[in-house]
Parts: sequence; structure tokens; C-alpha cells
Amino acid sequence: MENRKRFLGIDGGGTRTTAIVSDESGHILAGAVGHSINYYSVGMDQARANCAAIMKELQVEYGFAEYDAAFIGMSALDQEASEEATLAFASPIIQAKSIYMHSDSYIALMAGTLGSPGGLIISGTGSMAIAMQQNGELSVVGGWGYLLGDQGSAHDIAMNGIKAAIAGYEQFGEETYLSQQVLDYFAISHMRELIEVYYNPRMERHLVAGFATEVAKCAEQGDKVAMQVIDQAVCDLEKHAEMLVKKLGNFEGVKIGVYGGVFQHNRYIYEQLKGKIELKHNHVKVDLLGFPPEIGAIICCFQRTGTSLTEDILQQLSTTYPRRSTASA
Amino acid sequence: MENRKRFLGIDGGGTRTTAIVSDESGHILAGAVGHSINYYSVGMDQARANCAAIMKELQVEYGFAEYDAAFIGMSALDQEASEEATLAFASPIIQAKSIYMHSDSYIALMAGTLGSPGGLIISGTGSMAIAMQQNGELSVVGGWGYLLGDQGSAHDIAMNGIKAAIAGYEQFGEETYLSQQVLDYFAISHMRELIEVYYNPRMERHLVAGFATEVAKCAEQGDKVAMQVIDQAVCDLEKHAEMLVKKLGNFEGVKIGVYGGVFQHNRYIYEQLKGKIELKHNHVKVDLLGFPPEIGAIICCFQRTGTSLTEDILQQLSTTYPRRSTASA
Repeated sequence: MENRKRFLGIDGGGTRTTAIVSDESGHILAGAVGHSINYYSVGMDQARANCAAIMKELQVEYGFAEYDAAFIGMSALDQEASEEATLAFASPIIQAKSIYMHSDSYIALMAGTLGSPGGLIISGTGSMAIAMQQNGELSVVGGWGYLLGDQGSAHDIAMNGIKAAIAGYEQFGEETYLSQQVLDYFAISHMRELIEVYYNPRMERHLVAGFATEVAKCAEQGDKVAMQVIDQAVCDLEKHAEMLVKKLGNFEGVKIGVYGGVFQHNRYIYEQLKGKIELKHNHVKVDLLGFPPEIGAIICCFQRTGTSLTEDILQQLSTTYPRRSTASA
Repeated sequence: MENRKRFLGIDGGGTRTTAIVSDESGHILAGAVGHSINYYSVGMDQARANCAAIMKELQVEYGFAEYDAAFIGMSALDQEASEEATLAFASPIIQAKSIYMHSDSYIALMAGTLGSPGGLIISGTGSMAIAMQQNGELSVVGGWGYLLGDQGSAHDIAMNGIKAAIAGYEQFGEETYLSQQVLDYFAISHMRELIEVYYNPRMERHLVAGFATEVAKCAEQGDKVAMQVIDQAVCDLEKHAEMLVKKLGNFEGVKIGVYGGVFQHNRYIYEQLKGKIELKHNHVKVDLLGFPPEIGAIICCFQRTGTSLTEDILQQLSTTYPRRSTASA
């Protein structure tokens, strides 16, 4: 048993990093959570230091220093990194016979499709969609970031809610309960104070995105304007899904996973999207991601080392990693 | 002649500061241009240092050290500053018997209405509208900044153009020549490179806003998508104008001035807006600002010192300040 292969899977998300270790039976042996390793956000030195801290935790807590394979899902990337780029980031911090680095959306996709062709729509603070076609080719839709795009994301829903509140206040648009919600959420007593609160200094993106929950609540309570904002998000996510369906082609049993806070915390958006897509395309199945992205990274280790992914292994992964059965972004 | 009153008018815009000096006949005696005095943008110490540099230039070049009145249009403000706040900024840098400080949009309004009730729509990099009612009350419409609002501004037109280009690229929207224009303007060879160029580091606002000119060009050449973006801007500016008309009430000869790069460089937007508003409200006249904001600040000096503003004085202001007959923002 002790000579079994050990795989390291890392989800290097925008704000935090999750690392897990499995053996080749799919048994999750260890896990650690640390700060961001996105070298665009925190700089290369800090990213490497944060990665080293996680590696050290795995060594000190569990005694793991070397791996047969390591797969890093890196939010700074939108395609697979070259060997040079991978080693420039990971060496000598990660000791593994082989190390791979790809986008964080890729490992999330793999967590959903288990390596088969299929698609994934991510909607957390940001949004994007990714598909792997039958020939193995990857396509990305969306993911333009919070200022150029990210339609259907929490940040987008929040901004549309805030703009609708302003339009209500300015009498450019319909009156909406969102106006009151903006005052409450941002702890201001007058709408124009929002300018100071928002820009001076610039409000953090995740804090803005948090307002999406208030928009959803207003919509649930029947506020028409909030409902329009939520329906617009559904419509935007549907466009992403349609594009994935188009890219994936017409084979039977196309899977599209959805992942992230917007789907997890807003049942309405998830069910609307699932309902619309499955009704229109009866060869497509839309579901919440069954495994979190770091499990996707482990699945990539299996693939890259030529270790076949059996039902038993998937079962092991599932039962020995109970902490996050579905993941949040 | 030498004992005539001397007035100092300052337009402290977002990126630069213009100061002029007039005598009580409206003769412009001196002018100086310097860096921003917006203490939100550059910090209070730097803002005061920049103001001091301009005062020194007026002293060294023209021998002016003291004024009968000074009026500062300050882009950091959206209402008149208290005496304390004014002196905290201007003392002892500006030596004047009386000093006033108000928003930069207020002095622009005064440049348009010469102190009478009326309105002004500003559309440069940002946008906003301001009105002074017959009872002297001021109202502000828009001006929520480039992320929360500023509809109809160059930044807004540019962003809508960029988003339409992305939608064309993603096949979410109609094909448009804007996609090629984005590649050219931002000097990239593939649309997805825009993400890196735009966010890393974050592209400066005025650079983004510059793309509005390309949108206008595409619209002129008949690109449907670009035309929609421009028409949306007209529609948004019209909403601002409608709100001003509503706030100003129904007296005869209501003047609404328009000011800023969008109106100056885009005849179509100006003429559409003017045409629509004047057709709908035949008591309203829409025109490009006749005087730049710094002249508005001088007009405020006349008002506050109880010096009546005659036709002769206006004529003097006009003929002795030829450098900017209409102003750009």
C-alpha cells in the first residue's frame, strides 16, 4: 500500500488555493487551503510563497514531500502552460515526477466531465464557459472579466441591480425596492453617497458582487425590476450554454456542468437555465458540478499518468472527500 | 484703470486646471494652465501645490498677487464648499478678499446661463447634467461616474462599442466592423488579447474613452451596430435633457447648454439631441456652450461681488479670451 502512486491536485482560484492529495485508488489522503497563487493578482514571488506554504503544510501535517504527478488549475491562465512556464512557477516548490498547469476552468470542466467531452458554465463573482469537444479541442466562451463582460455573474447581477436602483432614483427607470436595498447594503442614507462609497477607494469586486444576493431576494419578493435583472442573467447564461451546445455538436448524452455561487445560491437561475437548455436540446443534460475543481485536478493526474479512472476510483474520490460535494466559486 | 477690481476664475477639472484673471470690465488680463487640483484624485497636498504653482505663474508672469474675488470650480465637489473647506484648500495660496468654491459643473452651468436659470449637459470622458431653477435651487442628474453611470459619455460609448465588438466576436451579437476597430485601436492581433491589455494593468479611463471616436467613425460609415451604440448615447443624453426640462419648469426661453468632447467632436450626437429636445419642447433652446467653464467662474465673481454683468462686459470677456470659444472636456 505504501508504494502506491500519490497525486497532487491544486485549484488556484482568484482568492484562495485548495490542494488535495490522493492515492491511485482515489482515496483522498490530505488537503490544505492557502492564499491565492494567481501570479497576476499577487505577483510571482507572493504566488510562489503562497504555494510553498501549502506544500509545507502538506509535508508537516501529512508527511508528503513528493508526488507522482501534480496538476495545477491556475486562475491566471486560460490555456495549458508550457513546461518552462510550469516549472518557472512550481520548481523547486512542488516535487513531482510530472507537473502540469492549466486554467482553473479546465480542472473545473474535468471535474464535471471526468475527462469526456462536455461543457461547463462557471458563474461566481465572474463568469465564463468552457467546452472540450470530441476531438479534445477546448473552446472558451465569455470570461472577459468584470468590466468587459462576465454576463450572468454575481458581479454583473449586482451592477445591473445597482444601476436599476440608480435609474429608479433618477426617475429614468421604474421605481424599485432595489433603491432601498442599495442604501441598506452599502450602509448609506442617500443614494448619491454611493458615489463616494463606491469610488473612494474603489470598492472591492467581491463586495460589489455580494449585492447579487439582495437582487435575488428582491426578485423573490416580486420586485419587477429585480426580476428583470435576474431574468437577464438567465438569458446571458443561456447564451453561453447555447454556444457550448453548438461547439460540442450533436452526440448523445452531452453534459454541461454548472458551477459557482450564482447557481448554488440561486436555485431559480439554475433551474431556469437547466429547464430551458434541456427543453430545447434533448440530447443535453445540465447539472451542478458533482466534484469540486481540485478533484478535477486529481482526475487530470489520473489521465496524464495513464491511470484509468474506474467507477471504484470515482466512488473513492466521492466518499473520501466529503467536505465539498458541490463547490462554490 | 489700475484700481479696477480683479477677479480670479479657476476651472479645476479632472486632469488639468485653468485659471484666468479679469478686471471688472470683463477684460481678460492673464491666464495660466496647470495640473489637477482635484484633491480626491491627487491628494490634498499635491492639489494645493498644483494650485500654488498656478498662482505663482500668475504672479511671476503678470504681477498679480491679490484679487478682489476668486471663484474655484472644483471637480472634487458636487455642491458649494463651506467657507472652512474653501479656506482649508485655498488659504494662504490664493490671496483674495473673498474666495468661493463650487463644483466644476456649476461654473460650466454659469458659463452657459450667465447666471440665469437654465441647464447644462456635460459629456466628455464622463457625463452629468445640472440645472439651476428659477428659485436658484440646483439639481444634478447623472454624474455617477464611469462604472455606475455616465451614460452618453465618451467612456460609455467606448465601452458599449467594445462590448458590441466582443459580442460580435463571440457570435452573441451581430457582426460589426467594431471588432476590427478594437484590434486596431488597442494594437492587438486577436480579440482575447484585449483581456490582458485592458486589465493588466487597468487601462486608463481616458484611453478607453478615446475609442468613442472610432465608434462614431464606424457609425458614420454605416456600421449598424456602431449606429445603435451612438443612438443609445443620444437616447441617454435625451433622458438627461428631459429631466432638466422637467426640473426647470415651463418658463419661456429655457436654455440648455451642452459641453464636452462628445458634443464637440460628434456633430451627429449634438444635432440629434438638439433637434429632439427643441422639437418636443418649443420653449427650450439647446446650444453648445458659448464660454468655457473658467469664464463661468469669472461670471460667478461678478455675481458674488454684486457687479452687474452687462452686455459690454460679456462682449469684453468674449473678445479678450479668444483661445477657447467653445470648450472641450
